[in-house]
Amino acid sequence: MARLNVGLIGLGRLGRVYARDLSSRIAQTRLTAVADADAALAGEIAAQFDVPHAYGRAEQLIGDPGVDAIVIVSPTHTHRDIVEAALSAYKPTFCEKPPAISLSEAADMVAAEERTGTFFQMGFMRRFDPGYAAARRHIEEGRIGRPVVFKATSRDPFPPHLEYANPKSSGGIFIDMGIHDFDLARWFFGEIESVQAIGATLVFPELASVGDRDNVIAMLTFADGRLGVVDLTRNGVYGYDIITELLGTEGTIRVGYIRETPILIMTKNQVAHDTVPYFMERFERAYTLQLENFADNVLHDRPPPVTIHDGVEALRVAIAATRACETGEQIEVRTIVAERT
Amino acid sequence: MARLNVGLIGLGRLGRVYARDLSSRIAQTRLTAVADADAALAGEIAAQFDVPHAYGRAEQLIGDPGVDAIVIVSPTHTHRDIVEAALSAYKPTFCEKPPAISLSEAADMVAAEERTGTFFQMGFMRRFDPGYAAARRHIEEGRIGRPVVFKATSRDPFPPHLEYANPKSSGGIFIDMGIHDFDLARWFFGEIESVQAIGATLVFPELASVGDRDNVIAMLTFADGRLGVVDLTRNGVYGYDIITELLGTEGTIRVGYIRETPILIMTKNQVAHDTVPYFMERFERAYTLQLENFADNVLHDRPPPVTIHDGVEALRVAIAATRACETGEQIEVRTIVAERT
Amino acid sequence: MARLNVGLIGLGRLGRVYARDLSSRIAQTRLTAVADADAALAGEIAAQFDVPHAYGRAEQLIGDPGVDAIVIVSPTHTHRDIVEAALSAYKPTFCEKPPAISLSEAADMVAAEERTGTFFQMGFMRRFDPGYAAARRHIEEGRIGRPVVFKATSRDPFPPHLEYANPKSSGGIFIDMGIHDFDLARWFFGEIESVQAIGATLVFPELASVGDRDNVIAMLTFADGRLGVVDLTRNGVYGYDIITELLGTEGTIRVGYIRETPILIMTKNQVAHDTVPYFMERFERAYTLQLENFADNVLHDRPPPVTIHDGVEALRVAIAATRACETGEQIEVRTIVAERT
Amino acid sequence: MARLNVGLIGLGRLGRVYARDLSSRIAQTRLTAVADADAALAGEIAAQFDVPHAYGRAEQLIGDPGVDAIVIVSPTHTHRDIVEAALSAYKPTFCEKPPAISLSEAADMVAAEERTGTFFQMGFMRRFDPGYAAARRHIEEGRIGRPVVFKATSRDPFPPHLEYANPKSSGGIFIDMGIHDFDLARWFFGEIESVQAIGATLVFPELASVGDRDNVIAMLTFADGRLGVVDLTRNGVYGYDIITELLGTEGTIRVGYIRETPILIMTKNQVAHDTVPYFMERFERAYTLQLENFADNVLHDRPPPVTIHDGVEALRVAIAATRACETGEQIEVRTIVAERT
Repeated sequence: MARLNVGLIGLGRLGRVYARDLSSRIAQTRLTAVADADAALAGEIAAQFDVPHAYGRAEQLIGDPGVDAIVIVSPTHTHRDIVEAALSAYKPTFCEKPPAISLSEAADMVAAEERTGTFFQMGFMRRFDPGYAAARRHIEEGRIGRPVVFKATSRDPFPPHLEYANPKSSGGIFIDMGIHDFDLARWFFGEIESVQAIGATLVFPELASVGDRDNVIAMLTFADGRLGVVDLTRNGVYGYDIITELLGTEGTIRVGYIRETPILIMTKNQVAHDTVPYFMERFERAYTLQLENFADNVLHDRPPPVTIHDGVEALRVAIAATRACETGEQIEVRTIVAERT
Repeated sequence: MARLNVGLIGLGRLGRVYARDLSSRIAQTRLTAVADADAALAGEIAAQFDVPHAYGRAEQLIGDPGVDAIVIVSPTHTHRDIVEAALSAYKPTFCEKPPAISLSEAADMVAAEERTGTFFQMGFMRRFDPGYAAARRHIEEGRIGRPVVFKATSRDPFPPHLEYANPKSSGGIFIDMGIHDFDLARWFFGEIESVQAIGATLVFPELASVGDRDNVIAMLTFADGRLGVVDLTRNGVYGYDIITELLGTEGTIRVGYIRETPILIMTKNQVAHDTVPYFMERFERAYTLQLENFADNVLHDRPPPVTIHDGVEALRVAIAATRACETGEQIEVRTIVAERT
Repeated sequence: MARLNVGLIGLGRLGRVYARDLSSRIAQTRLTAVADADAALAGEIAAQFDVPHAYGRAEQLIGDPGVDAIVIVSPTHTHRDIVEAALSAYKPTFCEKPPAISLSEAADMVAAEERTGTFFQMGFMRRFDPGYAAARRHIEEGRIGRPVVFKATSRDPFPPHLEYANPKSSGGIFIDMGIHDFDLARWFFGEIESVQAIGATLVFPELASVGDRDNVIAMLTFADGRLGVVDLTRNGVYGYDIITELLGTEGTIRVGYIRETPILIMTKNQVAHDTVPYFMERFERAYTLQLENFADNVLHDRPPPVTIHDGVEALRVAIAATRACETGEQIEVRTIVAERT
Repeated sequence: MARLNVGLIGLGRLGRVYARDLSSRIAQTRLTAVADADAALAGEIAAQFDVPHAYGRAEQLIGDPGVDAIVIVSPTHTHRDIVEAALSAYKPTFCEKPPAISLSEAADMVAAEERTGTFFQMGFMRRFDPGYAAARRHIEEGRIGRPVVFKATSRDPFPPHLEYANPKSSGGIFIDMGIHDFDLARWFFGEIESVQAIGATLVFPELASVGDRDNVIAMLTFADGRLGVVDLTRNGVYGYDIITELLGTEGTIRVGYIRETPILIMTKNQVAHDTVPYFMERFERAYTLQLENFADNVLHDRPPPVTIHDGVEALRVAIAATRACETGEQIEVRTIVAERT
């Protein structure tokens, strides 16, 4: 079988998982190069996974003629420049969410994709989770009639590091965490017309110092009049809990689970089980399936199922929610546009 | 044991359950009289439960010297006049939620209670449900640290009858269904400062004809800055599903269950159980415990744990949510006041 | 509605529940007399539930002309004499399980029923539990095809008092606990041909001192070749857990639940719920439904759904299991017969 | 990192999973050769997983100097000869359960291991499942006190192919399915002293034609007096359901789960989820962890955690259960010995 020669940019926590998947879990790929601003780290990862080339700069990897496709998991603020360079080199590119934390940067990525015509796939791995995929299938088969209300809850078991939480780099909780839920909302229900939101820093006061919140709620009105609600928290404490409900005219689908190990412990007046510790335990398979899908699409010349447009629109909703939260007003999503200087 | 001689006013579906409880389930009460605008019905119920007296008018029952305490389950629009009459007769009174559908009527009830000094207990039965009671206890014991987000979902399995749904009599979905959740919100978190809400008629267009909605969502900001969200639906379809989550700094409590019969049916690639059909199956015990509590309070001269003030404030939030839903604006709850002509 | 005038004999823990049910929960009955060897207790219970007559001897109650039907919850070793007296007085009689702890005593009860032709209903309340009743219905509707394996687990949260556990009075764990499961086995699958069993005293050595065991397992071969297994324990510890599985050719039904309060507590890496404390919390409704059924059968001249024959045959299996456990041999159930001197 | 050069013998369904794991999932191994009696299949698999060498005969692979360790997943009746050859070549060897279907063949394997002193690891993957591993850990930590009763249920969703089910090749249901449960019993509770068993062909009459049963139950008495029960079925129908319970003096642990996809579908009066289809979905991770463990043990010169002795003893119990089922008698496990001609 022909394998796709992939170069991987960004070797943080998620990047190392991608390195493992691209090098040994995914039959359709060969990991031929890795790059990270920390060149020593790049060398270590390359050694660990038998990767032929390691680079300290993204451009070096993009220019490597042995690299046929690019996977980007670098920090969000670097996405724009790397994506532009990769697309300009006409190399099919996959980029982790969010596309950027500003619409103007995201717009540059759209422009690069349109200008070069190069294949670009946005990373929203939940769409590849067997639970969410099954939910789509059941809905298409009519199992719950017409879905009319979208509900999503995302709970992180602990707050992010302060440098990461800083809205200047993460964009804040609606962009950092909520973008997954806003993407699901669009995937299941289509475009969102307006948003209202509330939020506060109730548990981790240090987050307030960098301008972020630890608990937020957003209500969505979809373009066709249907309704949605998303609530996010940094104090899941008990575990990593992601729940999505689709309330239909003839039934409801609930996606999510919180039990990790197949064991129940029953002691005096109590039955207990453990919980999913964090996102990789919950979505490991979704991440792998997503990269397999990327490789298949490139190898078989199929269009990307998740586009830069999806990234931009989910970001637009997240920014609208942030603004709604700040102003207490209902924000029309279409009024959120890139601010060019 | 001394029993409280109770008169019951209103013999609809819930009234008949109360008749059974007061006559045979509750050791502290004796049902000595029933009244309903349908005098023939009152006679039938009296015969069924061995009740000595049956009346066609509430005032007759209130005036019956054998009646020491009054329980009111008549239609909401009749509450004000009956409560005023009962309190003016200095008979301890229990009245089902909501107190009224207008704040001015509710204010009259407050005035009657203050003027007469008669014992008055408001009916919010969820507070007596073992699940909610256990949640309070666990929170007081510090099991989840400080609760910071209140989440409530109420799902009815089918829409109300049109004549009942008419906001002129029911007050609309926020008052009719939501008042329970708003009361829980206040019970667990204290006063609510502002509300935002969205809603639509997405499944039962006939509800729109009487001005009601079938799906609504409200976001709450509490006076102390904590957050809440309530979503209500008339298309629960699968069953009667009431879920409340209290998200704390050290854990989360979830109240609710949807399985009715202790049986699992496992057939080809499926494990299934049934659901709670409707509110009486879910809250039967809470209703009984609530009436027991009323009787105990009257017999032992204890103050009511749920007051007319609780009824008024939950109603005020429900009206604020209704207005927020109509205007798209954030409504300060304290701006909702009785409109006197 | 005509009510059945019932006399209740035996006012232990279960007897008091029956007193409550017969006096105030069951519309079809009036509790007109109670009797207990402890006459003072009988007086107290009578006062508590407004029962006109209280007796210190069963015969007094049986002879009371105001008593039309008899409910017996006295200790097992008294059943035979009381049942004989009640049937000889031609008063319809209900008797709690087990009928006796010896087959010869049970045979006397059969003889009394045949001789007098008086209505007699055996108490096996699980048959009236909504879970078991639903299981029967689903099987009759063909939901799981033909059931081929019967599995039952009964777990008590703690051991019985020593005086009670003494096999001379309780008959031992197979008779005391297992008789419910053997009755279910017969109800669902028909007669049992042979039994093998093992058992030991592994947790409560004091039980060994009176000749009882705390953990036992029995395998059943039904007359038609189908299979069964029953395991019993006194160290359920975590709660009262009763599980029955019916494994069919097209599916499996599982009856049982262990969660008591509708609440989940989610704390660091743990999700927990409470458990059913003991039998009354699990089967309260079944007990009430069983007495309602008894009253309905007597009032409407219907045959008893559970007969003395059912009591005798379940007892025979329990004795066979006890013997199998002692000998290590496979015991043919039909070889267990009353030993007459 | 040094990788272990592994040769894989047997490329049936499970063999192909092992080929994938050894070639791309396990960082410690390199799959250097595959062998199958079907040489063409060996060639295909080699091509699919980039394996350098493919053989039609096991001996060829064993003799390949590039192969440092052997993994055997060939049909059970071939185990003895292949294991003897591999051990005689002094190559560390892993062999899937059961070791053989006769004790005399298994004894030959023991002899070969003792004679050559070569590393040999028996395959019982459940011991590597996170659920079972957690159960061991919790027990060692004293969470449930002293375990006193071992309960295991294994349900296959459909019967085996007739040629496979034939006890001449599979050994019958107690050896084919039950050996996993008997191994768990020994792992958790130690040696088993005696067995009683019943069984029948109740659903798939064709199994009777080859002398097998589709439903069996076995009761175990451990050497120290503790108790156990194992029930097996071929008509799980609803899914692949493996449940193990360890009942202790202070609590109970239950290992097992039956829900596959994280989704609930709630429709009129029903809540449903899907089921685990078959063993690979349930134990995929356990299989991978088991091979990782084998590679680590060989690379780091650690003793095997599962030995040929474990294989022999679990087989002995399975044979004892089969004989108990045939005779209706309690069988002492130690009386089951290899029958040499």
